[in-house]
Amino acid sequence: MYASEPFSAAIDRETGTLASPDNIYERPLSAMAAMYEDAEAVKAALAGGDPIIYKVYEKNMPELPGELQWCMSVTMPGKIGREYFMTKGHFHEVRDTAEIYLCTRGTGYMLMETEDGRTDAQEMRPDVAVYVPARWAHRSINTGDEPLISFCVYPGDAGHDYGSIETAGFRKRIVEIDGKPAIIDNKP
Amino acid sequence: MYASEPFSAAIDRETGTLASPDNIYERPLSAMAAMYEDAEAVKAALAGGDPIIYKVYEKNMPELPGELQWCMSVTMPGKIGREYFMTKGHFHEVRDTAEIYLCTRGTGYMLMETEDGRTDAQEMRPDVAVYVPARWAHRSINTGDEPLISFCVYPGDAGHDYGSIETAGFRKRIVEIDGKPAIIDNKP
Repeated sequence: MYASEPFSAAIDRETGTLASPDNIYERPLSAMAAMYEDAEAVKAALAGGDPIIYKVYEKNMPELPGELQWCMSVTMPGKIGREYFMTKGHFHEVRDTAEIYLCTRGTGYMLMETEDGRTDAQEMRPDVAVYVPARWAHRSINTGDEPLISFCVYPGDAGHDYGSIETAGFRKRIVEIDGKPAIIDNKP
Repeated sequence: MYASEPFSAAIDRETGTLASPDNIYERPLSAMAAMYEDAEAVKAALAGGDPIIYKVYEKNMPELPGELQWCMSVTMPGKIGREYFMTKGHFHEVRDTAEIYLCTRGTGYMLMETEDGRTDAQEMRPDVAVYVPARWAHRSINTGDEPLISFCVYPGDAGHDYGSIETAGFRKRIVEIDGKPAIIDNKP
């Protein structure tokens, strides 16, 4: 009858950690090398080590519709060529589930798109909450020089679907042009 | 097919407001007079005006399971007799729905209980996230001397059920004893 119990956990808005995470994952560049536009720049970055692009500290709740998964998402600052560090991005496996990101540190964008080709980008900065609606794939992109950190909440049963976006790529990229972030078309 | 659109809104962790709320509600003492243990203290407080006990700044999303409602909750500092200012408290109408509170300012407790009589209290302070599980009634209680403020997220279809807890009351109260918060039984 009771799927979960009351609890609390401190978050650290500056480092992006949280107390007693159930799961931590770190994505190095090698795990998403094909997602960046500049293959030569990827090769150079890998030759110099294999930088961590982003980390997630998760609380894993029961995978039920009325429960809420939550985590801290930390995208590191940096670029591969002219393209800013970004998360892999995903749809939710259960498509009709939204997500909220409350940014606690850094600057960047939440890049979003739908399967039928609509795109959107919302600016992220501390104390801005971004609503990622149901059916929108989403990716965090760090355009600043410190970690981009958010507190994230989404339905318990949402799940992650990397597959479709991993092979096709997002329709837009965010790159540095003339020292500033620019949203450009992804030319396959 | 798309129940909502991407958007973002700034929150103010110090005042508890958010940009362009869809709804704001304020509960004065008169709207919850019977919930405090000390009827004489209630009468005295009402005679001196009708203090606002708490305010909520809401984003109203579609009332669907996969959407997420979110708001800023602001419980003012103060006491009625020895009992700290608190929210009315509620179950969710759809019982199997959880809620997350990320405290941004102040100190206090999330007081919780189940219909079958289990009780719990989690301490609230800035940068602590409290998980209110499905099927637990919950009430914020401000035991400090500044506003107790949280960013709150819950499933789109959850709804509020004040009825049962409004008439029966919570099984516990939080009152000041010897200058400190104490959790005591509610003697009907």
